[in-house]
Amino acid sequence: MIKVIKNGYVITMDKNGNIYEKADVIIKDDKIIDIAPNYSGEYDLLIDASNKIVMPGLINAHTHLGMSIFRATNDNLNLDDWLNKKIWPIEDKLTDDDIYYTTLLSCIEMIKTGCVMANDMYFGSKGILKALKDSKVRCLFGRCLMDAHNNGEEKINEFLELYHNNDNPLVKFAVAPHAFYTCSKEYLQRCSSLAKELNLPFHIHFCENENEVKGICEKYGSPFNALKDTGMLDTKLILAHGTFIDEIDKLKDYDVSVIHNPISNLNLGCGIAPIVKYKQFVNVGLGTDGQGSGNNMNLFYHMSVVDLLQKGIYKDPTVYSSIDTLKSATINNAKALGVDDNIGSIEVGKDADIIVVDLNNVEIYPGVDIITNLIHNTESNNVDTTIIHGEILMQNHELKLDIDLDSLKNKVDEIINRLMIA
Amino acid sequence: MIKVIKNGYVITMDKNGNIYEKADVIIKDDKIIDIAPNYSGEYDLLIDASNKIVMPGLINAHTHLGMSIFRATNDNLNLDDWLNKKIWPIEDKLTDDDIYYTTLLSCIEMIKTGCVMANDMYFGSKGILKALKDSKVRCLFGRCLMDAHNNGEEKINEFLELYHNNDNPLVKFAVAPHAFYTCSKEYLQRCSSLAKELNLPFHIHFCENENEVKGICEKYGSPFNALKDTGMLDTKLILAHGTFIDEIDKLKDYDVSVIHNPISNLNLGCGIAPIVKYKQFVNVGLGTDGQGSGNNMNLFYHMSVVDLLQKGIYKDPTVYSSIDTLKSATINNAKALGVDDNIGSIEVGKDADIIVVDLNNVEIYPGVDIITNLIHNTESNNVDTTIIHGEILMQNHELKLDIDLDSLKNKVDEIINRLMIA
Repeated sequence: MIKVIKNGYVITMDKNGNIYEKADVIIKDDKIIDIAPNYSGEYDLLIDASNKIVMPGLINAHTHLGMSIFRATNDNLNLDDWLNKKIWPIEDKLTDDDIYYTTLLSCIEMIKTGCVMANDMYFGSKGILKALKDSKVRCLFGRCLMDAHNNGEEKINEFLELYHNNDNPLVKFAVAPHAFYTCSKEYLQRCSSLAKELNLPFHIHFCENENEVKGICEKYGSPFNALKDTGMLDTKLILAHGTFIDEIDKLKDYDVSVIHNPISNLNLGCGIAPIVKYKQFVNVGLGTDGQGSGNNMNLFYHMSVVDLLQKGIYKDPTVYSSIDTLKSATINNAKALGVDDNIGSIEVGKDADIIVVDLNNVEIYPGVDIITNLIHNTESNNVDTTIIHGEILMQNHELKLDIDLDSLKNKVDEIINRLMIA
Repeated sequence: MIKVIKNGYVITMDKNGNIYEKADVIIKDDKIIDIAPNYSGEYDLLIDASNKIVMPGLINAHTHLGMSIFRATNDNLNLDDWLNKKIWPIEDKLTDDDIYYTTLLSCIEMIKTGCVMANDMYFGSKGILKALKDSKVRCLFGRCLMDAHNNGEEKINEFLELYHNNDNPLVKFAVAPHAFYTCSKEYLQRCSSLAKELNLPFHIHFCENENEVKGICEKYGSPFNALKDTGMLDTKLILAHGTFIDEIDKLKDYDVSVIHNPISNLNLGCGIAPIVKYKQFVNVGLGTDGQGSGNNMNLFYHMSVVDLLQKGIYKDPTVYSSIDTLKSATINNAKALGVDDNIGSIEVGKDADIIVVDLNNVEIYPGVDIITNLIHNTESNNVDTTIIHGEILMQNHELKLDIDLDSLKNKVDEIINRLMIA
């Protein structure tokens, strides 16, 4: 099956930063087979992208997809209070079935906002994997591991069973212990060994707020030593948050990505990561975190804030650009998740994970520089079409999934009422 | 004519912070005449607001409405370079006719994003006043005054003529000298006298970046002295930006409002104003600035960033709340502009400047706390209905103005091409 995305403004995000002001992207089955100035061959389906932007689908490199029900629960609460008072007591009561619905809602949010892949860490794995299958979005999934409650090995076994029995080609796995404050040194070492043995990425919350950094320093001497002593530095390491990593330069010889979560870090009063500095030494990607602290999973909103924050905290708008921002949510995130051979840019031979964005609505017109307008003024309603693995999941704003949204919203309302989430 | 907004979740923003989970707002002609649990009287028009939010129209307390054509021109440029390279050379060539179209576009952006009033400072006044009349939005307008090019008195005369001949009841006037770095001390004193004589608000850019503060200190000793020595402190003073005001406590006995412009301040590398501190001493409102530095005039996006920034820079989410944020763009801005007897809250006797917001779209569902969801997840497409002075200017997303949007966009494209804006 041949699909043609016709006449778009194609932002490839390839190594050379190629942008084609008017070009056609040709898709055969799940692959991009050509980017042509004016394709005249046969096709089965044509998507008219005239006056629209054609770009790689966004990637969200730190999520908790099951947390959609915690959206707008965080006002006026710091990280520790929010977790202890609002999140953990409720999470204990969530069933796999609940998590199916809450995750499905997040997957739909991804499709509606032009995101094709999440790097997820949560529990209720069976619910998550079912929601991923039903929504057809990509995921690097790590069952959240911790041994704080003496059942660490049980969680690893659950993870291994999921990993060995996976039949969804759009789902990959990561070893994902929760954090240094919820896992013992021995457990983290066990996780590192496992990641090396299975050749899987390693995903962990790291240095999210100053309190956490203090705890890490007391136990391990420094954040760098903590990574080294637990064996993580020998893995493909995905550090979520990293708001405060003092010795970032020491990480330059390792396969480390820092996944910046700016909205969450502001909302919970953690602070602002100096990613202009970080990106000199490591790959820097972007995540939204769960909706409770991240507000939403619309990466366009998060990209705008990343770009603004770096310009603002350095008091110098020349230190960071719109294109740096766009890289973080596309190719950099693909590198972080180990899928950059496959997605993250529009290139011949890669999978067709592509979105079409329409910036012609009057309230953001005109946008003189297209990339700047894209980064700062794109709202979810500007995302027109989302294609994952060659399959159109949304076209002209219309979801192509066999999911009844009203009954899904009702299911989620039932969960909120039953668990008295407030 | 009686209009009823039925069954909405009514956020009044009145002094007591009243919120009605389900109520009717009754409008007679241009006034709010009742807020009732279940109105059963006669009416001419009913707006069903079931499952929607009914709230005061937002107010934008610092704009340059004519600058819509500079949207997305600012990436990687600091304030001085942006003004000198991108803005001022083009502004010299703009005609009143050009500014009519660029302002009209901004007014439509206001209506689409739920904003009922701007505090505008620009030139090309005839074009602006015509656009305000055609779009029916409110404005406190100040012709931008400066004497840097020796024609300061001419500008004041132009302003006075506009002021004395105004026949638009939705337009009020402010004396609006540009800034301390473009106006002499004598000229600013002349402006202060004029504002006192005519009993008009005084609007000026103030302490936007550190460079400007340095210049003010060299000439006047301190920001406070600058305000005092020019007589501004004896006026109803609207200070736009105020990113760096050290002696904010000294302003507490004066009629001073600081209008925070966080997006613009980040974009241009100015910094972040500590408004948690400011609001202990002065009224703090919110502005977007022009779209060039402010990205857009959607105050919901700006509110989200205000709220996030204050929680982030103080590293404490308890210092600022969603309701503080909402106040800044409603009743606080009304106070700043001297219109709080009339708009800024939903109260019996006030003008009907009301918006209806629908947060039921699946990609931001659910939002457990309504105010938090409203502040952080409202996009322009969530604004359903905008009413100004009792007149419905947008209903169910449909503009009720007799303006052809496509031809307006074409006109704006012509200006951009003619002036080679890039």
